[in-house]
Amino acid sequence: MALIVQKYGGSSVSDAQSIKRVAKRIAEARRAGNDVVVVVSAMGDTTDELLDLAGQISPRPPQRELDILLTAGERISMSLLAMAITNLGVKAKSFTGQQAGLITDAVHGRARIVDVVPHRIRETIERGQVAIVAGFQGVSSNNDVTTLGRGGSDTTAVALAAGLDADVCEIYTDVDGVFTADPRIVPSARKIERTTYEEMLELAASGAKVLALRSVEYARRYGVPVHVRSSFSGATGTMVVGTHGDLIDPNASHDQEEAMEDPIISGVAHDRSESKITIVGVPDVPGQAARIFEVVAGAGANIDMIVQNVSAAATGLTDISFTLPHGDARPTMAALNAVKDELKFAELEVDDQIGKLSLVGAGMKSHPGVSARLFGALRDAGVNIEMISTSEIRISVVTREDSLDDAVRAVHTAFQLDSSDGEAVVYAGTGR
Amino acid sequence: MALIVQKYGGSSVSDAQSIKRVAKRIAEARRAGNDVVVVVSAMGDTTDELLDLAGQISPRPPQRELDILLTAGERISMSLLAMAITNLGVKAKSFTGQQAGLITDAVHGRARIVDVVPHRIRETIERGQVAIVAGFQGVSSNNDVTTLGRGGSDTTAVALAAGLDADVCEIYTDVDGVFTADPRIVPSARKIERTTYEEMLELAASGAKVLALRSVEYARRYGVPVHVRSSFSGATGTMVVGTHGDLIDPNASHDQEEAMEDPIISGVAHDRSESKITIVGVPDVPGQAARIFEVVAGAGANIDMIVQNVSAAATGLTDISFTLPHGDARPTMAALNAVKDELKFAELEVDDQIGKLSLVGAGMKSHPGVSARLFGALRDAGVNIEMISTSEIRISVVTREDSLDDAVRAVHTAFQLDSSDGEAVVYAGTGR
Repeated sequence: MALIVQKYGGSSVSDAQSIKRVAKRIAEARRAGNDVVVVVSAMGDTTDELLDLAGQISPRPPQRELDILLTAGERISMSLLAMAITNLGVKAKSFTGQQAGLITDAVHGRARIVDVVPHRIRETIERGQVAIVAGFQGVSSNNDVTTLGRGGSDTTAVALAAGLDADVCEIYTDVDGVFTADPRIVPSARKIERTTYEEMLELAASGAKVLALRSVEYARRYGVPVHVRSSFSGATGTMVVGTHGDLIDPNASHDQEEAMEDPIISGVAHDRSESKITIVGVPDVPGQAARIFEVVAGAGANIDMIVQNVSAAATGLTDISFTLPHGDARPTMAALNAVKDELKFAELEVDDQIGKLSLVGAGMKSHPGVSARLFGALRDAGVNIEMISTSEIRISVVTREDSLDDAVRAVHTAFQLDSSDGEAVVYAGTGR
Repeated sequence: MALIVQKYGGSSVSDAQSIKRVAKRIAEARRAGNDVVVVVSAMGDTTDELLDLAGQISPRPPQRELDILLTAGERISMSLLAMAITNLGVKAKSFTGQQAGLITDAVHGRARIVDVVPHRIRETIERGQVAIVAGFQGVSSNNDVTTLGRGGSDTTAVALAAGLDADVCEIYTDVDGVFTADPRIVPSARKIERTTYEEMLELAASGAKVLALRSVEYARRYGVPVHVRSSFSGATGTMVVGTHGDLIDPNASHDQEEAMEDPIISGVAHDRSESKITIVGVPDVPGQAARIFEVVAGAGANIDMIVQNVSAAATGLTDISFTLPHGDARPTMAALNAVKDELKFAELEVDDQIGKLSLVGAGMKSHPGVSARLFGALRDAGVNIEMISTSEIRISVVTREDSLDDAVRAVHTAFQLDSSDGEAVVYAGTGR
């Protein structure tokens, strides 16, 4: 039948009971005749507990040792899962990242995969056994244990699916798939049936947490079909595939075919994880921005949006604002203050009370009506826009954090994404 | 200076605080100019907790998966210990059994070491760094994780000390060394300053728990000097060395030199972990005993002492008794009952209320006075002897379990091992 790579996150294997439940699902997939490879994260809060232990030992533990410590988590979950599957009468074996052939560079804590040589995994499935692989971890060329950083298990799953030429990579999670907005904020949010790598990338980069950004990049590069679905139900979730061509449902009505030139809105993402820094009163001379962002990069900050005000002719001064993760704000402020005399700015402001809303979908740029409708919806909801940035398939705005939920709901409704707006959604987020 | 291998058990690294304390001791050894390699067990009750988790998942988990699960424990303790040492300003790196080059056979759960190739450990100490190695674990030739079974971390330490040609292997524990008897039973028991591998082997095999039997066998084979000492104090503990020649203290008085031909009693060990099976009314014909112990071995039992009564001439029947670990009694009884018709015995009796006392020391066989004094002490204490077995350097007797403590105290006193009996014990257990 098919070769399936399944990935289960920590919340799906939080205790013995849930491990048994997951084992049953895996055994069923195997009994249905599929070759099954399973990638598993550490149980529940294990990783946080281990980090807490490390914190009790050392304020700044060496990253190499932290990697060894954290990979104990998957070692526990993967062996328990293999036991549970074996106990159901289906043979299963577990493998560390090293044993599974996940070769990475030596950058501990956020290693990149450089090769996947899954000989042992292939052998195992050829013998009709289920292979369980530790997520999040690999081995460097000098035989040191590495971790892939945040969302690492998703990346392990997609990389193995690519390396094994799997038919699909199923990412199991505690929600039913990717939604048009966070259902906790927008109760009428709809599950997206199918979307493209590009839109999924924008959604993940804009705060949708269901799938790690890096794994989507990997899936896109190797063309791995990804199925995001719930570990609690048998329902299909969200398929993430190559191009919008792949999205056309052969059973679609003429109405939908005619609509193909219209923008296809995938959903509304939001993000509360960023701060805004504003550099006030910067001399508006060539090279000034380059120098500023050199300093910011030197502080290790990942900046997101940047806005420069129009310079006031009278003073020759301008303001520059940018957003970055909360945790990067303090070192960045320190780095900028250290060169205040050189850059000659008046002052620095930091604001951690911002929210970001992103509307993601295909064909936005060629439809000026989209941004007009977005801004109108925010105005009607009384939400002030502080920054704007756009890409080919995304429009993001920064608002006050406390008006973010209202903003998400207003935009979701304005683009007719609410589930009551349509029936028989063939592919979600069409805005029809 | 010296190359020292130190081993810390689970009780020495039970929480963050004790890990920091151990780290301090290791850092001091390194700062004193020694090359230091540290073998560490899993923290406190980690192994039991992991076994409990496995038990919740499966009644009979595959041994390969159990090995992967259990080795998570050392992964946690070794990385935390490396962090703690680094935090004290001494560079340290941790290594799994696989990384440290501990190659074993593929018998999961009780693997034997087949080779030690500690290239990375050597590199690490040559750079002046402390190498932390996970105890209890190795890697098989097919790159699977194995565990060494009970007392595995002691064996790892001794094997590494042999492979690195270390000057000494220090086994840190929660007691001050090896004692002439269990101080919980005999408060006047004395710490043994020096003893030989052979006597330590007999002590370990007879129930002394401070050092795993296997590690003593390994130390003896490769001539590794072992120092059993407390992780809570700086005092020297018990040195386990090659021959009694090594035991002679250059500062010893003439009195002691003259005593060299006398028996040297090391101590009194006791054991409550065995049951006794008696096969009543066995026809006393050739080959019968061989067949019985074939069946017993087939049941997987490790038998210890064997006694066959003198056959009663009138009946041509005899009784055979043997001792074995409690857990082996039930399968052995079942195996014997299954061949009752073939063996033609009258009945089987099992007794789990026995205790075993062993007196260990050099030169016993050539001094008949030793056994006479032992049996006399037991008689005076009102202790009945049920079985006797002897070796070159040991006499063991089986008693009722509830009289074992009295027996140990009586024998300890009779051989003048009580600490009030002597002062300035040059090498303990001389009986002088």
